[in-house]
Amino acid sequence: MSFTIPSYTTPDFTHSRFTTAPLVTFKQVEIQGVAPENYHATSIYPEYFHLKKDKWTLLRDSRMDCVTEREKNGELTVKEFRHLKPGDMVALGRGENGEDGIYVHTDAFRLDERVSDKFRFLSRPTRETSFSIDYDELYHLMDFERESGFIIWVLGPAVVFDRDAREAFVSLIENGYVHALLAGNALATHDIEGALFGTALGQDIYSKRSMHLGHYNHLDALNRIRAAGSIKNSVKTGMLKDGIMLTLVMKGIPYVLAGSIRDDGPLPEVITDACEAQDKMRALARRATTVIALATQLHSIATGNMVPSYTVTDDGKVRPVYFYMVDMSEFAVSKLANRGSLTVHSILTNVQDFIVTVQRGLLNNIV
Amino acid sequence: MSFTIPSYTTPDFTHSRFTTAPLVTFKQVEIQGVAPENYHATSIYPEYFHLKKDKWTLLRDSRMDCVTEREKNGELTVKEFRHLKPGDMVALGRGENGEDGIYVHTDAFRLDERVSDKFRFLSRPTRETSFSIDYDELYHLMDFERESGFIIWVLGPAVVFDRDAREAFVSLIENGYVHALLAGNALATHDIEGALFGTALGQDIYSKRSMHLGHYNHLDALNRIRAAGSIKNSVKTGMLKDGIMLTLVMKGIPYVLAGSIRDDGPLPEVITDACEAQDKMRALARRATTVIALATQLHSIATGNMVPSYTVTDDGKVRPVYFYMVDMSEFAVSKLANRGSLTVHSILTNVQDFIVTVQRGLLNNIV
Amino acid sequence: MSFTIPSYTTPDFTHSRFTTAPLVTFKQVEIQGVAPENYHATSIYPEYFHLKKDKWTLLRDSRMDCVTEREKNGELTVKEFRHLKPGDMVALGRGENGEDGIYVHTDAFRLDERVSDKFRFLSRPTRETSFSIDYDELYHLMDFERESGFIIWVLGPAVVFDRDAREAFVSLIENGYVHALLAGNALATHDIEGALFGTALGQDIYSKRSMHLGHYNHLDALNRIRAAGSIKNSVKTGMLKDGIMLTLVMKGIPYVLAGSIRDDGPLPEVITDACEAQDKMRALARRATTVIALATQLHSIATGNMVPSYTVTDDGKVRPVYFYMVDMSEFAVSKLANRGSLTVHSILTNVQDFIVTVQRGLLNNIV
Amino acid sequence: MSFTIPSYTTPDFTHSRFTTAPLVTFKQVEIQGVAPENYHATSIYPEYFHLKKDKWTLLRDSRMDCVTEREKNGELTVKEFRHLKPGDMVALGRGENGEDGIYVHTDAFRLDERVSDKFRFLSRPTRETSFSIDYDELYHLMDFERESGFIIWVLGPAVVFDRDAREAFVSLIENGYVHALLAGNALATHDIEGALFGTALGQDIYSKRSMHLGHYNHLDALNRIRAAGSIKNSVKTGMLKDGIMLTLVMKGIPYVLAGSIRDDGPLPEVITDACEAQDKMRALARRATTVIALATQLHSIATGNMVPSYTVTDDGKVRPVYFYMVDMSEFAVSKLANRGSLTVHSILTNVQDFIVTVQRGLLNNIV
Repeated sequence: MSFTIPSYTTPDFTHSRFTTAPLVTFKQVEIQGVAPENYHATSIYPEYFHLKKDKWTLLRDSRMDCVTEREKNGELTVKEFRHLKPGDMVALGRGENGEDGIYVHTDAFRLDERVSDKFRFLSRPTRETSFSIDYDELYHLMDFERESGFIIWVLGPAVVFDRDAREAFVSLIENGYVHALLAGNALATHDIEGALFGTALGQDIYSKRSMHLGHYNHLDALNRIRAAGSIKNSVKTGMLKDGIMLTLVMKGIPYVLAGSIRDDGPLPEVITDACEAQDKMRALARRATTVIALATQLHSIATGNMVPSYTVTDDGKVRPVYFYMVDMSEFAVSKLANRGSLTVHSILTNVQDFIVTVQRGLLNNIV
Repeated sequence: MSFTIPSYTTPDFTHSRFTTAPLVTFKQVEIQGVAPENYHATSIYPEYFHLKKDKWTLLRDSRMDCVTEREKNGELTVKEFRHLKPGDMVALGRGENGEDGIYVHTDAFRLDERVSDKFRFLSRPTRETSFSIDYDELYHLMDFERESGFIIWVLGPAVVFDRDAREAFVSLIENGYVHALLAGNALATHDIEGALFGTALGQDIYSKRSMHLGHYNHLDALNRIRAAGSIKNSVKTGMLKDGIMLTLVMKGIPYVLAGSIRDDGPLPEVITDACEAQDKMRALARRATTVIALATQLHSIATGNMVPSYTVTDDGKVRPVYFYMVDMSEFAVSKLANRGSLTVHSILTNVQDFIVTVQRGLLNNIV
Repeated sequence: MSFTIPSYTTPDFTHSRFTTAPLVTFKQVEIQGVAPENYHATSIYPEYFHLKKDKWTLLRDSRMDCVTEREKNGELTVKEFRHLKPGDMVALGRGENGEDGIYVHTDAFRLDERVSDKFRFLSRPTRETSFSIDYDELYHLMDFERESGFIIWVLGPAVVFDRDAREAFVSLIENGYVHALLAGNALATHDIEGALFGTALGQDIYSKRSMHLGHYNHLDALNRIRAAGSIKNSVKTGMLKDGIMLTLVMKGIPYVLAGSIRDDGPLPEVITDACEAQDKMRALARRATTVIALATQLHSIATGNMVPSYTVTDDGKVRPVYFYMVDMSEFAVSKLANRGSLTVHSILTNVQDFIVTVQRGLLNNIV
Repeated sequence: MSFTIPSYTTPDFTHSRFTTAPLVTFKQVEIQGVAPENYHATSIYPEYFHLKKDKWTLLRDSRMDCVTEREKNGELTVKEFRHLKPGDMVALGRGENGEDGIYVHTDAFRLDERVSDKFRFLSRPTRETSFSIDYDELYHLMDFERESGFIIWVLGPAVVFDRDAREAFVSLIENGYVHALLAGNALATHDIEGALFGTALGQDIYSKRSMHLGHYNHLDALNRIRAAGSIKNSVKTGMLKDGIMLTLVMKGIPYVLAGSIRDDGPLPEVITDACEAQDKMRALARRATTVIALATQLHSIATGNMVPSYTVTDDGKVRPVYFYMVDMSEFAVSKLANRGSLTVHSILTNVQDFIVTVQRGLLNNIV
C-alpha cells in the first residue's frame, strides 16, 4: 500500500447555480485594518469567486476568518483584517452557494472508500478509538510528503522533556521528514537545556534525577544563548552539542519560535510580537501539505487557524492539506476538530510515545 | 543493564522499640463478618507481629484494609472482614511502632541510588513526565519476571478496540510475559467480537468502518459463547480463531473475569458475585511479583487494594511487588498512587501505544 | 416558564410501510439464557411490533440490548438474555422499518423549537458549553417531576466527600426531589463515615484536616454497620445521626446499593451479585421519568443501559425519560452520549457545585 | 468568622547563619539583556539581602526567575533578564541560607492551625477534594480585600460563553470585588460579541441556538470595535450595551489584554508584544494581594510567574499574596501548584459554576 492523493472534484460550473450567479462585488476599505460591512469571510474550504461572466476563480493560499482583496492586477489575496489598507478592494457577500458570486466548495475530495465510510467521520475520536490505521496511513503519507510535499511540525515542550522522544524527533529531522518547525520559547529553551545540562526544568531527561540547583538550568540556558546572540551562533561556536534546535540549524530547516506572555528570557530568535509571529508562521503555513501538531493547544490552534483544507500545487493541481493533532485530552482535540475539516486527524495519546512510534515505523520498517 | 531485585532491610529487632514491646493481643470474633473493636488493620507494607518474646513474625500474603487472624496452629492469616467467623482470633492495636506489638515497616527496600533520588518519588507523574527510563526498566524487569516471577496483567477493554494493541498483547502471552489476567466481561466480549467479526462495538478494529447492523455484534458474540457453554468450549470447537482469550486458553494461563453492573450477557466464565470475584482475584494476586494495570480504574484499584508492596518468595526472601498503572488521566493514576507505595509506577499514555511499544521493546530488541 | 411534556407523535400506521408489513415472527428458546439466531435486539427508542394484521403494539418497560418475549397471554416483555428460559418465544428480525414486522420510532417527540434547534443537539457539550439554560430547565422539570414523575439519582462517592454537597443532597431528599437512589458501597460507606466521624477517607469533610489514624474510619464505619446488621438498624438505634442514608431510610425512599470488586466491607444492604443488582436497579429504572447521574461512570452507564428514551404513563400517554449526566470529563459524558438519545443532557462540572447550585435554585428561588 | 491576615515571622538575624554571613556581591552587566555568570535568581519567597554588616534588606516587588539589581541609590530592584543594561549591578550567589549573603525565607507565615494542618498542604487537590471551606474562606478574604487589598482576576474566555457566568462577573465588578483584569483577546472579543449579538462564537449564550451565519459574529465584533478605534470609544458611543468590558470601562478599572498567536483581529487595546504585555501585567501584578485565575493555562501561569507569595503593604507590613486557580483539569492546576507556594489554592470545577456560586455567596449572603 502506498499513498495516493485523493482526487479533486471541480464544481460543475454549467449548473444554473453558477450560470445565473452575479459577479462578486468589492468595496473599498476606508479605515486602516477595518473591512467594509458585509465583507465576505473565508473558510477552510476551496472557494470560487465569480470575477468575470462564467469565469470562477479558485482562491489560493487561503485561510479561514480572513477577507479577500482584489489586487490592482486582478489577483485575489486572502488577507487578515489587520493588513487592510485604505483603498484595498474587499469582496462582499455572505452567501455560500453563488448567490453573491462566491461558492464555498465543501465536498471537494473523493475519499478512499475502503477506509473512510460514514461512521469514521461522524464520530469524534476518544482515547478508546483504534489508531492502528492512523499510524499506517501516516507512514505512507510521510514517505510521500518527504519527496513531494512540505511537512510542518508544531511542537509543545513535552517532546523535549523525554530523552527518547527528543532523540526520535532529531532522527526524523535528519531523515528528511521535517520541512519546518513551529514552536514557542519553551520548546527551544528546554531542548537547549537538554543539550547543555541533560535536564529539562532541572530534572535529568532520562533518569529523572533532580540536579542540585537544577531550577537554574533553564535560566542559564537562556542567559548563555542570549550572550551568544542567537541559537545559530551557539551552534557555530560549538556550545550546542545535540538536540532539535542544533539539528534544524545544521540542516538549514526553517523554524518560527513565537513568543508568549509565559516566556522567560526569551531566546533571541523568539518573535515576541504576536502579529509578526503570525505572519512568519503563515509564510510557512501556506506551503504546508501536511501539518503534525503535538501537545500544544496554543500553537496547534494558531496553526490550524491559518491552514486551509486544500492547497494548489506548483503544477496547478488541488490537493488536501493533512492536519494531525496529537494530544492527551479529548477537550483539546475537540477544539480543533470543531473547525469541521474532514482532513483533521486526531490521535489521543502521549506525544512521547507517538513520536517514538512514528520514528520506529518510518525508519525501522516496523509498521 | 539487567534487573536486580532491591535488597530487603530487616528491622533491627535489638532496638529498644522492639525489646520493650508487648506481645500482640488477640480478641475473639463474636458476630459473623464483624471484627472486635480496636482491631488492627493491615497496610501495604511488611508488618511484624510480636507473637512470642523477642520473636517478630512477618505477615505473609498480606493486603491492605484487612484484619489478621491467629489460626489454631499459631499461623497468621490476613483476612477480609467478611470472612471472619465467630471464634476467630483477631489482632488488636493501632500503634504502628511496636507499642501494641505490631511494627509496620515502611522503609524496607534499599533503592538503587542511580535512578531513585528524592525528586522522583516526591513528584507525581503527569503527561509531561519523562517515561523513557520506565520503559527500559520495565523491559529488564519483565525479562527477569518471565523466568522467576509472576506477572499479572489487569486489562480494560481499550486494549482490544485496536488491532495492533490486541495483536501485541497476544504476542506477549505467546512469549511468556503473561502469567495471569484480571479483567471484566467487556474485555473478553470485545476480544471475542474481534475474533468472530473483526469489530469492537460494531466498528472494524483496523479500518474503523462501521459494519451494517454492527451494534448486534457484541450481543451475537455473547449469545454464541453462551450457547457454546464457555469460552473454553468455543476454543475447542474452533469457533474462536484468534485473540487474547483464545491464546490464554491455549496456553493454559489463568484468568479471572469479574462481573459488574454494566455488563451485557455476561459470558459464562464471568464471576458475577463481587465477593467471590475478589476471592478468585486475590488467589492470583497473592502470587504476583509484578502487576501491570491498563486503562481500567475499576479493576486497577480493585487489584491495587489486594496487592501489598512486598512478597515472600519460596526461598524465604522478601522482595518488592511492582505495580505499573497506565492510563490517560492524571486523576486515575493519582487515585491509585495515593496508596503511597514506592513501587507504584504510573505511566500516562494511551494503552494502545504502551502495549505496542512494550511488545516491540521486548521482542524486537528495540529499546 | 413552567415545564410542559413534549408531545408524542404516533407513527402513521396507514403508511404502506406498515400496511404491507409482515407480522413479527417468534422463535422458541432452546438453551437457558441463549436467544435463537436472528433475534431482534431492542433499542432506547419506542418500538412497535406488528402482532396482528394492522395492529401495532408499543413495547412497554423497554431497555436497549434485550430481546422481546411474547408471553403466554400475548403480552410482550423486554428481557435480558440471561433471563431466557427454554420455551420462551423470542421476536426475530433486524429490520427497523417494518420489513420484519418491527418499527423503531426514532423521531417520536416534537421538541420545543425555541430552545432546541439543530446545533444544540449536533454538538457535543464540553466544559466551555453554556449551561445556564440547563439549570433553568432542570428546575422546572424537577418541580414538575416532584409532583408527577419519578426522579432517580445515581451517585458516585464524590457527593459525600464535601460537606455542602452532602447537606444539599439531604435537603433535596427532604423536599421530595429524590424518589430513588442508585449507588455503590462507597457512597453509603463514606456518607456513614461522615455521620460517625465527620470525615471521608479520614479527612474532615469541611476543614480537610486529617484525623489521627483516620484511615481506620471507613473500616470502622463498615464494621459497626455490619455489627448492627443493616443501615436501617443503625438508624433505628440512633447510631446514625445525619446524612443521605439516614434521610433515605427515614423517608422510606427506595435505594439499591450495587456491589463491585473495589468494595471494602461491604455494607449489609449491598447487593454483591451483579445480575441480581441489575434486576433490582431495573425494577426502579422502569419507573423513571428523570434520571440524574453524578460522578460515576460505572453506575451511570449501568443505569443508562437500562433506561429507555420514553415511558408510558399510567394514563397511557407516552412521554420522554430525561437523563442528565454530570461529570468533570468529556470522555465520561461522551461514553454515555454515544447512546444517541436526544434526551441525554450532559453537564460538565464538579458535582459538588452542581448539587449545591441545584438545591439553591430549587429551594431558595435563586435561579 | 472574619478574615485575619496571617502574621509574618521575621527571621532571627542574631542567628550565627546571619551574623557570620558575607555581604552580597554584585557584578556588572556587560551585554544588554544578559546577566553575569553565577547571578542569583529570585524565587516566590521573601528574600533578604545582606547589604551592610548586620543589615538584611527584604526584596520588594519580587517575582521568581529574575535577577536583583542594585540601583545607583542603593535600592534593590527585581528585574527580568531582558531589562538588564550594560553597567547594571546584579547580585551573585546561589546559596539560599546566607552563605552568599542571601537568605530565602520559605517559612514566613504562621498559618491558622484550625484549618491548615499537614495533610491539607501535602496532598494535591483533585476533583474529589472537598471545596466547601475554600468557598467560605474566599468570601471572607474577598470582603476583606475589597476594602484593603487589590484583587486581580485572570480570565479565560469560558466565563463569557455562558449568560449566568457573564452576568455574575459583571455583578462582582459593580460591587467592588474586581480591582484589575488580566485576559486575552478572546475574553474581550466574545464578551463584546455577547453585547452586540447575544452570542459567543455564533451560539446564543443562553438558549444555545446557533444564529444563522453566526460564525461571522466574532469577526463583526472585532471589525466594529476596530472601526470605533477602541473598546473605550465603543462604550462612549453607546455601541456596547452590557458586559464585562463595558463595566470595567464605566468603573475605570484597569485591565491588560495580552495578545497571542491564536488571536483574530485583534481588538485595538490588545498588546501584541509579549514582553510589553508582561511589563503591563507586572505593573498590576505587583499591586496584587489576591489573584483569582479562571480557566486559562496561558494567562494563569503567566500571572503566576510574576506574583510572589508575599507583598509589603504601604505601612511596611509583610503579608501573603493569595492565589486561586480554578480549572477543570488536574493537569492544569498541577502545573501551577508545582511552583510550591503554600498560598496557591486550586479548585477543580467549571468556572461557570464557580463564578455564579461566588457571586451568590458574596452578594446574597448564601454561604
